[in-house]
Amino acid sequence: MPSYVIGVDFGTESGRAVVIDVADGRELGSSVYPYANGVIDKTLPAPDDDVRLAPEWALQDPDDYLRTFQQAIPAAIAAAGVDAASIIGVGVDFTACTMLPARADGTPLAAVPQFRRNPHAWVKLWKHHAAQPEADRINQVARERGEAWLPMYGGKISSEWFYSKALQILDEAPEIYDAADRFIEAADWVVWRLTGVETRNSCTAGYKAIWSKQDGFPGSGYFAALDPRFANVVDEKMYRDVVSIGDKAGELSEEAAAWTGLRPGTAVAVANVDAHVSVPAATVTEPGRMVIVMGTSNCHMVLGERIAPVQGMCGVVEDGILPGLFGYEAGQSGVGDIFAWFVDNLVPAEYFEQAARDGIDVHEALEREAAKLTAGQSGLLALDWMNGNRSVLVDVDLSGMILGATLATRAPEVYRSLIEATAFGTRMIVESLEEAGVPVNDIVACGGLPHKNKLLMQIYADVTGREISVAASTQTPALGSAMWAAVAAGAVAGGYDDIKQATAAMATLRDEHYLPDAAAAAVYDRLYAEYKTLHDYFGRGANDAMKRLRAIRDRALEGAARG
Amino acid sequence: MPSYVIGVDFGTESGRAVVIDVADGRELGSSVYPYANGVIDKTLPAPDDDVRLAPEWALQDPDDYLRTFQQAIPAAIAAAGVDAASIIGVGVDFTACTMLPARADGTPLAAVPQFRRNPHAWVKLWKHHAAQPEADRINQVARERGEAWLPMYGGKISSEWFYSKALQILDEAPEIYDAADRFIEAADWVVWRLTGVETRNSCTAGYKAIWSKQDGFPGSGYFAALDPRFANVVDEKMYRDVVSIGDKAGELSEEAAAWTGLRPGTAVAVANVDAHVSVPAATVTEPGRMVIVMGTSNCHMVLGERIAPVQGMCGVVEDGILPGLFGYEAGQSGVGDIFAWFVDNLVPAEYFEQAARDGIDVHEALEREAAKLTAGQSGLLALDWMNGNRSVLVDVDLSGMILGATLATRAPEVYRSLIEATAFGTRMIVESLEEAGVPVNDIVACGGLPHKNKLLMQIYADVTGREISVAASTQTPALGSAMWAAVAAGAVAGGYDDIKQATAAMATLRDEHYLPDAAAAAVYDRLYAEYKTLHDYFGRGANDAMKRLRAIRDRALEGAARG
Repeated sequence: MPSYVIGVDFGTESGRAVVIDVADGRELGSSVYPYANGVIDKTLPAPDDDVRLAPEWALQDPDDYLRTFQQAIPAAIAAAGVDAASIIGVGVDFTACTMLPARADGTPLAAVPQFRRNPHAWVKLWKHHAAQPEADRINQVARERGEAWLPMYGGKISSEWFYSKALQILDEAPEIYDAADRFIEAADWVVWRLTGVETRNSCTAGYKAIWSKQDGFPGSGYFAALDPRFANVVDEKMYRDVVSIGDKAGELSEEAAAWTGLRPGTAVAVANVDAHVSVPAATVTEPGRMVIVMGTSNCHMVLGERIAPVQGMCGVVEDGILPGLFGYEAGQSGVGDIFAWFVDNLVPAEYFEQAARDGIDVHEALEREAAKLTAGQSGLLALDWMNGNRSVLVDVDLSGMILGATLATRAPEVYRSLIEATAFGTRMIVESLEEAGVPVNDIVACGGLPHKNKLLMQIYADVTGREISVAASTQTPALGSAMWAAVAAGAVAGGYDDIKQATAAMATLRDEHYLPDAAAAAVYDRLYAEYKTLHDYFGRGANDAMKRLRAIRDRALEGAARG
Repeated sequence: MPSYVIGVDFGTESGRAVVIDVADGRELGSSVYPYANGVIDKTLPAPDDDVRLAPEWALQDPDDYLRTFQQAIPAAIAAAGVDAASIIGVGVDFTACTMLPARADGTPLAAVPQFRRNPHAWVKLWKHHAAQPEADRINQVARERGEAWLPMYGGKISSEWFYSKALQILDEAPEIYDAADRFIEAADWVVWRLTGVETRNSCTAGYKAIWSKQDGFPGSGYFAALDPRFANVVDEKMYRDVVSIGDKAGELSEEAAAWTGLRPGTAVAVANVDAHVSVPAATVTEPGRMVIVMGTSNCHMVLGERIAPVQGMCGVVEDGILPGLFGYEAGQSGVGDIFAWFVDNLVPAEYFEQAARDGIDVHEALEREAAKLTAGQSGLLALDWMNGNRSVLVDVDLSGMILGATLATRAPEVYRSLIEATAFGTRMIVESLEEAGVPVNDIVACGGLPHKNKLLMQIYADVTGREISVAASTQTPALGSAMWAAVAAGAVAGGYDDIKQATAAMATLRDEHYLPDAAAAAVYDRLYAEYKTLHDYFGRGANDAMKRLRAIRDRALEGAARG
């Protein structure tokens, strides 16, 4: 009898359930639930829409996650046309750090009438950026105390991460802080809702809550130095027993079985993160092969045998991606976002008109023109920091630059230079890893961009000097979650006993490989040398013009706001 | 009886004649003759259009200049409705260096049947850029020999200038070089045609042919070092008696009177250059007031009491602008050209649509949006070198840069940053002059841009910290030529005895003055400091990335051309 698994991928705007065949990883049916309350960034949802949010806030409604289970899972099963009884496991992946305060029984404080008008009771979405003052404090105190974990996170903790958000609650809403029995990743919270079992997965614990298998969480002395009331945040508000990726979290409760139409007792995998779960879905279970999730931003992951501090990593976590290996994560905060910005703001009508005539997307029209150029022909060089620099500089205050423009410069040339700049940024990450002894022999790309933009893939191959393959699935997060579900179920139930077996059976690459072109690579070596010089000049303190311009801008904006 | 004068302004695409009232400088009528053969840059005109020109070539047909006299002057007189007998003088200004080879009697070699199929027989227009190898040789030999005049020209002679073009003729067409009795500026050639008298004006001689009142032309030893055949270029092909701006060149011949409908014997002024003749037309006859002709490029002129080497000047010439004073000239090679490039290549449809709805030009629509921003609010900083840098770096191989872009950057912000960058470039010139002891107390703008773009004028005032006035005339070259014609005629004939008197009577400013805003100026001081740092970093050798990118581009283009 065939067995199936379900992967549920919780994104920023919607949740997606996909039914996958355990035997070969085929996608049989899927369904998307667009969150009723989406990203909450102006006011709380009605009837509390008189409560306005400050800039940089981004919340979500935990009920939207439950509705994803209730609506998308049954719809995906129906679309797949399979018998729900043959579904042997469920796995979920989530954006991170997306966290919420809850009662000891799992009730979100947003669902408690006395708290629901307080924005701090709601889910703080990954892109909630209002906790920067707390992140600054977290970093400063860690530097002052010489906390050993800091170098493993590129020397800087993000405002997006767990303690920044928790500390903001303590700072701004101590009554919510006090009322919360738990601060928990939404990833773990939804697994708790499915199984009735509270777990903490090693991926978000490691990458977002500074946990390590060796040393656990930071000590209470450190937390006390942030705020005496914060000293015991781990013991009072969290959970010390971190469970490795790949374990079974529990089994589907009667209640959750009723929501989803699945059998009670169905295996549920420990929660995971959308990017990290893509690694095995992109066929990678061994060191030396980098997976890049390429979309609005890039997330780079590679497995290592040893732990090593690599400059500007987002983190390195044992069991963070696969059990028994060290998962290195780096990132570029703007990639597809930069191309979209350019198209939305600096591309003249003729390219839109040409695209319309040819029935293609304007990105495709620009790519077609850009592909007519050879490496170096535009004369342009860009720094890809229009959305800051995540790795390896870890600096949100940097900005973008385009150099080499002449009166002959045309939009497709700029478009190509932006693609090239993101490729140089990736090469910087690859080289930083290799310099620290973490090999990157080849690359597997997944996400939205690789399936759309062949020029981009070839440029990445030429710039990095590495072969690039593309994952066959266009839904690697959901596939990856389903693969972990098959491992949670185990071979005895029709799944697999480990992720290597699951990967061998369920994950495949497209029959499309990008090999570096020697001539282009030679030109890009020269351009990359220029990129590196400017990267260090503007990014490492020789000329902090970008930061001063930003400060001048912020002052001008304040002045304009005052009128 | 009222007296009138005619100014004839020879531009790149057409010649314009304007009839001006001597009493008050009023423009009474004008006419434009578009050159029949325009800019000749692909093939020679028919029937010789099988002769193709190499890239970078730009020629003109000397007959187009005569047709300007024959058609535009009578038409302007008719339009003015004045009696031709009351016209007391004619003055001309020209682009420069625009030069041609001629016979001893003034016949252009292009009109000699045996030479007319040789492109070197034609007029080399100012923007003929094919003599770069010769310019390189001229500069190298001058540096090696320590020629004293080199620092007065910013340390570098342009491929556009007189000896570069003459030497190219010698290099590539020695038969034309031998056949030429004269190499002459078109400015002087047309005056020769009007009067029958060969003169060489001090303006083009000084700025384009390295003449100085004190030292004359470079010595034959220098020219011999370029090429032994070139040793006596001055004595064999030119004319040593340079005549000061403001003198009378001669009187209208019978032949030219018949062309134009003017009286034979009408005073004709010594020829001049379009930019330089604008200085008195912009009311300036004394040191301390800079005139900027603002259009596709900027030309900056200021008068000084003394000669001083100023870094990156185009030149400093005694009697070059006004008799008895030293005329300093500097320039920015891209200004309006840069705004036009941006609009043509990087502005999305919405601004064109908005402009169409409001019945305004797209530049005006962008300016309106840009004017809503305060200084510094865009967060952007640009280097205005999309067409190279004329002053003060004198480097055509530099290119443009835009720094500070974020995903929130919009087209009007970039537009404003480009305006600001050209203002910073002007401030760099102003400061270089003042550091060398040449004061710049205020600025008068003329040309096409000041009448169209108020935001630009205000930004220039804020950035330079100087009051900016605008010349009333929109045709300052033709007005200036007419003023010099009134001086050539003299008071006895109803004109003026010197240019100060003519200026007092004939030139006026608009009732519109731009004063620096203290708050904006303070912000721009900070942005200018950033500009200066990057100006020096990219422009003075610390990082020659722009040149290397250009070299990489050129190699890529060669590769692409080879296929």
